[in-house]
Amino acid sequence: MPEHTTASRLQLSGLCFLLQILLIILFAVFVRYSPERSPSLCSQQLNCSLRNTDAGFQHPRFRDVHLQALLGFGLLVAFLGRYGPGSVAISILVVAFALQWAILIQGFLYFFLNGKIYVGAQSMVSADFCTAAILISTGAVLGRVNPVQMLLLTLLGVTLFTLNEYVLLSLMGVSDSGGSLTVHTFGAYFGLMVSRILHQPHMDKRKEQQDTGHQPDFFAVIGTIYLWIFWPSFTSATTVRDNAEPWAALNTYFSLAASTLATFVLSPVLHEEGTVQMVQIQDATLAGAAVMGMAGEMLVTPFGALIAGFLAGLIPLLGFRFLTPILCSRLKTQDTCGVHNAHGLPGILGALLGTLLTALATADAYGGRLELVFPLVAQGSRTATDQALTQLCALPVTLLLAMLGGGLTG
Amino acid sequence: MPEHTTASRLQLSGLCFLLQILLIILFAVFVRYSPERSPSLCSQQLNCSLRNTDAGFQHPRFRDVHLQALLGFGLLVAFLGRYGPGSVAISILVVAFALQWAILIQGFLYFFLNGKIYVGAQSMVSADFCTAAILISTGAVLGRVNPVQMLLLTLLGVTLFTLNEYVLLSLMGVSDSGGSLTVHTFGAYFGLMVSRILHQPHMDKRKEQQDTGHQPDFFAVIGTIYLWIFWPSFTSATTVRDNAEPWAALNTYFSLAASTLATFVLSPVLHEEGTVQMVQIQDATLAGAAVMGMAGEMLVTPFGALIAGFLAGLIPLLGFRFLTPILCSRLKTQDTCGVHNAHGLPGILGALLGTLLTALATADAYGGRLELVFPLVAQGSRTATDQALTQLCALPVTLLLAMLGGGLTG
Amino acid sequence: MPEHTTASRLQLSGLCFLLQILLIILFAVFVRYSPERSPSLCSQQLNCSLRNTDAGFQHPRFRDVHLQALLGFGLLVAFLGRYGPGSVAISILVVAFALQWAILIQGFLYFFLNGKIYVGAQSMVSADFCTAAILISTGAVLGRVNPVQMLLLTLLGVTLFTLNEYVLLSLMGVSDSGGSLTVHTFGAYFGLMVSRILHQPHMDKRKEQQDTGHQPDFFAVIGTIYLWIFWPSFTSATTVRDNAEPWAALNTYFSLAASTLATFVLSPVLHEEGTVQMVQIQDATLAGAAVMGMAGEMLVTPFGALIAGFLAGLIPLLGFRFLTPILCSRLKTQDTCGVHNAHGLPGILGALLGTLLTALATADAYGGRLELVFPLVAQGSRTATDQALTQLCALPVTLLLAMLGGGLTG
Repeated sequence: MPEHTTASRLQLSGLCFLLQILLIILFAVFVRYSPERSPSLCSQQLNCSLRNTDAGFQHPRFRDVHLQALLGFGLLVAFLGRYGPGSVAISILVVAFALQWAILIQGFLYFFLNGKIYVGAQSMVSADFCTAAILISTGAVLGRVNPVQMLLLTLLGVTLFTLNEYVLLSLMGVSDSGGSLTVHTFGAYFGLMVSRILHQPHMDKRKEQQDTGHQPDFFAVIGTIYLWIFWPSFTSATTVRDNAEPWAALNTYFSLAASTLATFVLSPVLHEEGTVQMVQIQDATLAGAAVMGMAGEMLVTPFGALIAGFLAGLIPLLGFRFLTPILCSRLKTQDTCGVHNAHGLPGILGALLGTLLTALATADAYGGRLELVFPLVAQGSRTATDQALTQLCALPVTLLLAMLGGGLTG
Repeated sequence: MPEHTTASRLQLSGLCFLLQILLIILFAVFVRYSPERSPSLCSQQLNCSLRNTDAGFQHPRFRDVHLQALLGFGLLVAFLGRYGPGSVAISILVVAFALQWAILIQGFLYFFLNGKIYVGAQSMVSADFCTAAILISTGAVLGRVNPVQMLLLTLLGVTLFTLNEYVLLSLMGVSDSGGSLTVHTFGAYFGLMVSRILHQPHMDKRKEQQDTGHQPDFFAVIGTIYLWIFWPSFTSATTVRDNAEPWAALNTYFSLAASTLATFVLSPVLHEEGTVQMVQIQDATLAGAAVMGMAGEMLVTPFGALIAGFLAGLIPLLGFRFLTPILCSRLKTQDTCGVHNAHGLPGILGALLGTLLTALATADAYGGRLELVFPLVAQGSRTATDQALTQLCALPVTLLLAMLGGGLTG
Repeated sequence: MPEHTTASRLQLSGLCFLLQILLIILFAVFVRYSPERSPSLCSQQLNCSLRNTDAGFQHPRFRDVHLQALLGFGLLVAFLGRYGPGSVAISILVVAFALQWAILIQGFLYFFLNGKIYVGAQSMVSADFCTAAILISTGAVLGRVNPVQMLLLTLLGVTLFTLNEYVLLSLMGVSDSGGSLTVHTFGAYFGLMVSRILHQPHMDKRKEQQDTGHQPDFFAVIGTIYLWIFWPSFTSATTVRDNAEPWAALNTYFSLAASTLATFVLSPVLHEEGTVQMVQIQDATLAGAAVMGMAGEMLVTPFGALIAGFLAGLIPLLGFRFLTPILCSRLKTQDTCGVHNAHGLPGILGALLGTLLTALATADAYGGRLELVFPLVAQGSRTATDQALTQLCALPVTLLLAMLGGGLTG
């Protein structure tokens, strides 16, 4: 990034211009406002009914989802803060492009009707989720690709993310409201595969320095604060109906608190310098949030959330100490922002936890909530065990798609 | 500001004290809480019915508007961040005084009944809008006037803003929910006129340096993030009823995304140094938001919002390159924070766009929404063309009032 | 803090581990999700009905309270920002632990039924209040105790806070929605007593320097902004029903604005250097907010809020100039963050104001609101004067408990 030649500058400029023109044309042809007062449009599709928070309630629907889009976006900027001042401009470019592109691609799969895409606040929330995954991916390659490559990565990443999400949520009927699999695991492994392909051994040294640049601590403080404020809402953004929300939000709060304590337990043991770094706390917070992505809306119970959060909070520290060196030397995968430790592994743990909880789900324990969390089980078309198997299958599917996609993109 | 003498310090102290005492007395005489459960009070005035979000719905009214005041205030602080650490204290003084004064002045025009001003959360939102305009104005003169002058500017600015808003919204029946004209255009040109009158050639050099002080980049990052989070809600804060909201918010999101991409298109072409500055991104974001002020709630269509945002995003960069030098040398107008490029011109563009859309408005395209966006057209007392002419007339009226007012204030 | 030995590091690690394990076990034994659709559970307890925002309204209950928890947490981080980058890690540890512990302790007193604690979003809001008080306390001793002592202080502080809150709200029936007494006064004097006991004369000098470390101004800007955004919502978080909310929020806004102006009135008179420091503005903002804690939901009238805010805004400046030296030399109490000036005194002033307003409360002036603010008066079981006496008694009770508790903890 530092030594832009005139050619590469104009290349970026031209690419942005072309993409924006393309987006404007596609929007002009396909995108229309979602007609008002017609939730019926939505109920024709499975995923839509899974995602749609207040489909049954005419009135507060728009305002609520709008607020969720607002909060969802707050999350995105929490990621932004993570990458430090030097790379924020590129990250905002990625966000601005990914949002528009995700609305188009997701529109074709979910909101396509009579040859038009109908956008509403709902589309904005879905696009936010997608952009979050892409930001995770870019975290793995940050500092090693130029902005033009970053835009191409975003272009392909959004497409593959939407494909993966469509397979998981609509075709397989997986419950993954907070995106343990779709956002965290996919984002992390997609980014890692791209990073693997683009491996350039001689660039390691210089980039290490960039990462520990001036005032990373400051951005970590702001980032952690944003995560605490916005993530519980993010996890519960797409949970079904009002009543399911507090579970997801409460579980995420518990998980965040436990993962923070976990950092203070492990950090003094592993590191000599004694004081706990804010970056470590932020990574633990991310991990504690990622692990609650799938299980958050299930009956994880408060102490279950504490245990999961505690374990997740240990992952990034252990990962940085033992796993990252191995990844770096054996697999030749660089991971600028520790994406594997903070998103990949906790996401997988979250998916396994979600699977376990799904297998244990009974109509008694969930009551009326069963219909909201596992609609297919409630309708009787699946047993809880089948649903658990499906959830489990979703993990390798996501990993496979992320790996293949990352390889292709690289 | 740096060389305060004892006299000027005590002058500021005395002025603050007098103003606060005056405000307390005026509040004691005139201001009362808005009686609860009586939206009927509000429906007697035209502007009130234009502004009132949920007048018909007894229940969620208070909470909603309260939340909007919260978000509106978030916007104000986004402006604050823009002006850097050195001037934040003065800006907060301006905010604290403008809020109280705006509640009084706007109260006399809008919420005055039986000799009393009835304040509610609604008044707070209106006062927020007014304070935003004043902050834009102060941005043009920042660093060249002392705090006492700044307070007097605020005193007159709030009064003139309210007068302009009253003429536009209540007398002329203009639709300008997001304040393209009332907030951005008025604020920018009022500030520029004051700046023109106060022109002191020998002070240019020193202030240039202050502006590019330590870590402006950092504040630009925070400011941009706040804008992305809060502006879509701000634009839609006063749109009528729940159903109109997502349009305004969606349009603003699209506009923001397109204007950010526009920065990446134009910046590498115009500037040699290659990397896009965060300040440029923030200016483009401001412009992209300003252009959606009036048109946001209209049927601008998603691709229209993208085009408008893209064009608006080009304005600040072109303006700084070509227009600011001319302004500075020919018209002897200094513009510390580039207010003309980020607010003035995009605001005018937004007003023209709004006029165009108004002329094209038909009952078919808007459906039930027509009544909300253009109540006078829906009632049949005006044609869409008349409304468009009115909207167009509002532009010179605003410019004239801002210019005259700025001249007088200076 | 700077010279951690290996032993003290492992001590912290071990203590965190033990506490987390203990919490997990206690959560496993006692804590369950609040059953849905059963506000009846809540109505059996007095405090619950005082606190419960929307007990009567089945539908928006969960979402609202959830949002309030979000905003309440925003407040906590505003405190965090106050203590500077060096101590943020410790503060986040305190938050993470206090949240979990407060849910347990408060659960035993308020939400205990059939041997189980039923947690919901409501518990999270209460825990937020408690954590805010603890953060105020830690502000008084910050930099003089090690993390292990800080955790023990949190452990005891949470317990005593809950006890005090229970006595005041449930047993005495005091109205203190914004926590003038329970949060600000208790937090400040508890912290000050601990600070008094731990007094070590030879450590004064070094810590003074730490406090005025690098970029305190920057964190003060962020902190002030957060306070302006979130505090009005915090004060009104637990006010009863939707209709009472705007009063508390409006009053807090007025109070904040007036206290900011007060800083600009007094600061130039007291200090030679001329420019108003951001830290002074933040302290005035805190004081302006603390004074509205109890009186906010009462009929304080807009000009009353302005006067109270103005007076409260004067306190921190006068306190730092005249009171802190006396405290430091005579009473041997250090107060790292000026907790006494920004929280203690304004909290007492707020309590006295609340008492005065309670004594003046009549059914005529309050109308239907009387039932919400003073349920016991509305039910006829108390006169307004009795209620005022009770409110007044709550002040020495709080001071006594805070002093005794702080002494014991120290």
